[in-house]
Amino acid sequence: MNDNFLNLASPWRQRLAEWLERASVQYLVTGLILINAVILGLETSSTAMQQWGHWLRTLDQLILACFVIEIALRFTAHGWRLLRDPWGLFDTLVIAIALIPASGPLAVLRALRVLRVLRLISLVPSMKMVVQSLLASLPGMGSIVALLGLVFYVAAVIATQLFGEQFPQWFGTLGDSLYTLFQVMTLESWSMGIVRPVMEEFPYAWLYFIPFILIATFMMLNLFIAVIVDAIQNQRDKVAEQEQEQAPPSESALLLEEVRQLRAELHILQQRLPPNEP
Amino acid sequence: MNDNFLNLASPWRQRLAEWLERASVQYLVTGLILINAVILGLETSSTAMQQWGHWLRTLDQLILACFVIEIALRFTAHGWRLLRDPWGLFDTLVIAIALIPASGPLAVLRALRVLRVLRLISLVPSMKMVVQSLLASLPGMGSIVALLGLVFYVAAVIATQLFGEQFPQWFGTLGDSLYTLFQVMTLESWSMGIVRPVMEEFPYAWLYFIPFILIATFMMLNLFIAVIVDAIQNQRDKVAEQEQEQAPPSESALLLEEVRQLRAELHILQQRLPPNEP
Amino acid sequence: MNDNFLNLASPWRQRLAEWLERASVQYLVTGLILINAVILGLETSSTAMQQWGHWLRTLDQLILACFVIEIALRFTAHGWRLLRDPWGLFDTLVIAIALIPASGPLAVLRALRVLRVLRLISLVPSMKMVVQSLLASLPGMGSIVALLGLVFYVAAVIATQLFGEQFPQWFGTLGDSLYTLFQVMTLESWSMGIVRPVMEEFPYAWLYFIPFILIATFMMLNLFIAVIVDAIQNQRDKVAEQEQEQAPPSESALLLEEVRQLRAELHILQQRLPPNEP
Amino acid sequence: MNDNFLNLASPWRQRLAEWLERASVQYLVTGLILINAVILGLETSSTAMQQWGHWLRTLDQLILACFVIEIALRFTAHGWRLLRDPWGLFDTLVIAIALIPASGPLAVLRALRVLRVLRLISLVPSMKMVVQSLLASLPGMGSIVALLGLVFYVAAVIATQLFGEQFPQWFGTLGDSLYTLFQVMTLESWSMGIVRPVMEEFPYAWLYFIPFILIATFMMLNLFIAVIVDAIQNQRDKVAEQEQEQAPPSESALLLEEVRQLRAELHILQQRLPPNEP
Repeated sequence: MNDNFLNLASPWRQRLAEWLERASVQYLVTGLILINAVILGLETSSTAMQQWGHWLRTLDQLILACFVIEIALRFTAHGWRLLRDPWGLFDTLVIAIALIPASGPLAVLRALRVLRVLRLISLVPSMKMVVQSLLASLPGMGSIVALLGLVFYVAAVIATQLFGEQFPQWFGTLGDSLYTLFQVMTLESWSMGIVRPVMEEFPYAWLYFIPFILIATFMMLNLFIAVIVDAIQNQRDKVAEQEQEQAPPSESALLLEEVRQLRAELHILQQRLPPNEP
Repeated sequence: MNDNFLNLASPWRQRLAEWLERASVQYLVTGLILINAVILGLETSSTAMQQWGHWLRTLDQLILACFVIEIALRFTAHGWRLLRDPWGLFDTLVIAIALIPASGPLAVLRALRVLRVLRLISLVPSMKMVVQSLLASLPGMGSIVALLGLVFYVAAVIATQLFGEQFPQWFGTLGDSLYTLFQVMTLESWSMGIVRPVMEEFPYAWLYFIPFILIATFMMLNLFIAVIVDAIQNQRDKVAEQEQEQAPPSESALLLEEVRQLRAELHILQQRLPPNEP
Repeated sequence: MNDNFLNLASPWRQRLAEWLERASVQYLVTGLILINAVILGLETSSTAMQQWGHWLRTLDQLILACFVIEIALRFTAHGWRLLRDPWGLFDTLVIAIALIPASGPLAVLRALRVLRVLRLISLVPSMKMVVQSLLASLPGMGSIVALLGLVFYVAAVIATQLFGEQFPQWFGTLGDSLYTLFQVMTLESWSMGIVRPVMEEFPYAWLYFIPFILIATFMMLNLFIAVIVDAIQNQRDKVAEQEQEQAPPSESALLLEEVRQLRAELHILQQRLPPNEP
Repeated sequence: MNDNFLNLASPWRQRLAEWLERASVQYLVTGLILINAVILGLETSSTAMQQWGHWLRTLDQLILACFVIEIALRFTAHGWRLLRDPWGLFDTLVIAIALIPASGPLAVLRALRVLRVLRLISLVPSMKMVVQSLLASLPGMGSIVALLGLVFYVAAVIATQLFGEQFPQWFGTLGDSLYTLFQVMTLESWSMGIVRPVMEEFPYAWLYFIPFILIATFMMLNLFIAVIVDAIQNQRDKVAEQEQEQAPPSESALLLEEVRQLRAELHILQQRLPPNEP
């Protein structure tokens, strides 16, 4: 998929890799993905399935076969190194999901077949760039996300112990509490749905929930700000680089040249003068 | 509407175009639009309609006639090129809506007659500028909107397959799922209204919804940031331009001038010196 | 209240104005406002009113008397010019509300007596500055607020005509529609509370509401961005000014001085040289 | 905990302090906290308590004993100065909560034992830095928070007086009103839950609530902006500092040096010239 794949052992594998990278092949795969997206969308409609169910399923299998062949060719060309490239790993996983027989407890995998459509991202350069820049902004959020996780864990343990017995549907287990606190952080029905009923039993529950909301939303705000500041900084760096590249020779540089010539001329002048006449 | 319309064939069409651009004509049209806005507002009140219904409708028809005449004159002046200007196209469409007989399946068009009031935007320069800057910020959002659309489509197909049978009112068809996911993205009743009921049937539904919320809101956040960073960058560019225009001759430039004169003087000095006396 | 009030006719009025501006008087008024705030808070509690109701009301009247005297003194000192200062006008209005007999249809004014406490803002400099900077950011939002108002008006007329008959409690009149659209813009219960019920009757209602939400929130976002960009710009200007004030004489200036002296010396040199010896 | 603790009287106390700061000891404490976090999480599960309840409680007591010994050693090393360091004070408080017998009215303290887990923050440097930067952004929000508090107080007094009698569950007391207004500010069910029911009784209640929402959210927006602008400013200052440190000797400085040498050479030249020949 990218340059470091191309230092291949045998020349025919290299030629295969190059062929797979060709624009025409890429367009073909993109087209197949788009058709597949439409088919998978139509499969959700029972009317469409009743009318053309057989054709849709056959076409889906055909396109899947194409994808399997494509990924097999890529494995032939690149070997297991394909799995080291995140996009290659993603493509492989998404195809693998479609091949696992989706029955019994794995029936949910049938619904995940549509993830295949996300392969579009790795084929359309502008989308790939957006996803990579989204992912690139994640590490900078590391410490604050860890802190938010810690606050959530502590808050969930407290909520489970305080309100778990009276409100088992919301705070019965640690998991329930975590889910409810996430809901509270998004401010969805936090008061009418959760806190007012809790305050019927525990009149001072607001002493727990209001600080939680303030802390959680303040941390979310700072998470957003970290991303914004980072984005502005990146933008500025990029602009600064462009400016430096395009900059004409600065006035300062012109001046320095001018002064150096001046000194050279003065030097000539000195040599032309008669030696000190004592 | 703007300069490139004025290279017209015959002089009387040019004079007509100029007359239509005149401040007094523009004020007249603006005034008619404002009066029309009030009339259309009053028409929604049944009391007002009972008392002055006839007058309101007559006045509305009169003003509409004025608009039709105005747009006809503009067509006379500019010809079909009027439709190439987005504002001209908008004005034509908005008048056309009022002329289509609004009955039967088109009754909804009667309600759209008020869109006519939006013509104010093209007549008030400051509003026109705001709309143009809003529209100008759209292309920069292209890739991320496409990505968001892709994520929505994939998520809707999955939701329809997983929850469609049990919750047909929310996830019955692809369209229902898209609408429900939009609601979830705006965080409106996502938990109490949608996810908690779904979790009664599918206890692990949060494994689908929480990641969806995180991804969708994170992408919305990045959409906002793209707009913010763009706006800040534009603002900075504008300020930088202004500074460059207003800047006094820089110290550097003064200095360069000074040094060049110095060299010139030294040159004179050299010529005045006696030639090398060997 | 500020300097331009002090160019007073008679010297005793000027001395009165200065006395009113003294720190000790200002602290006294601030203290009275704080005590008054507590009293007005206690008056909302029926237990407190039963126990100390008489004392609270008496104290409230006493403090009000002090405020009346203060404002009367300020009118004596500054005359009607006091009303030209926005803060002076605000103080006068707030005291006037307390003096109107609050009975019959004006009973609501009794509740507004607590607005008096807002006089704190004009007495605490840091709060006054914040309010002034908040107000200063309003004009920049002018065109976009006007545009938002226009969009709301048009959307409300359409909604009243389309949904008014079936849903009179939400879209019965233009006012109802405006209120409901404001609610929808804040995303409060927009789907579960409003749009889903409407879609039971009008299955295509989402074609109206989803674009409205997108447009309204996008405009709100741009409103926020306008404020943010403005704030960042102001901050940058302030920093730039500070830097310019504190900056040491720049290297450029030093250099210019150096080069000018060089020319002067060269000039001396020229004069010392013998005239051209032809 | 930090350097200013180390100027201790006796050398063995200093050695003890150094030993406590060692990486291995810090890792041990971090490990104990993590194990304790898991235990406290498990204690919320009734299944886990039935099976291993005894072991969990014993392990919890053991780890608590370790924490008590650690804090005792730190007190031995640093004396009461430990309480002057905010992190030291926090650690002490969190351990003290676990030692208070949690029964009767203090039963709530049992739930607060999990706050102990927050000690992680002071042990993980990157988290500590995030918390310190969050706290550092608070003072800048001072005036606007005070203003928001004032607006809330005034609004709550008005709401209690206007709506307290008819809607005691929401506006019965000043505290109820403050809570309800906080809910309204977060936009949770503000319309369907609160304002629409109130408007059944008081049709003009929107004249109170809409301005309140606009003012409160506008102030929150400005609070956010203050934090954002501050963060961007800090970021810029940091970048500017780094640039200044890394900057190569500027062209301007080179030039100044060049010109100074030029003047020196000219001076030599002057001295070599014959004195004025009158």
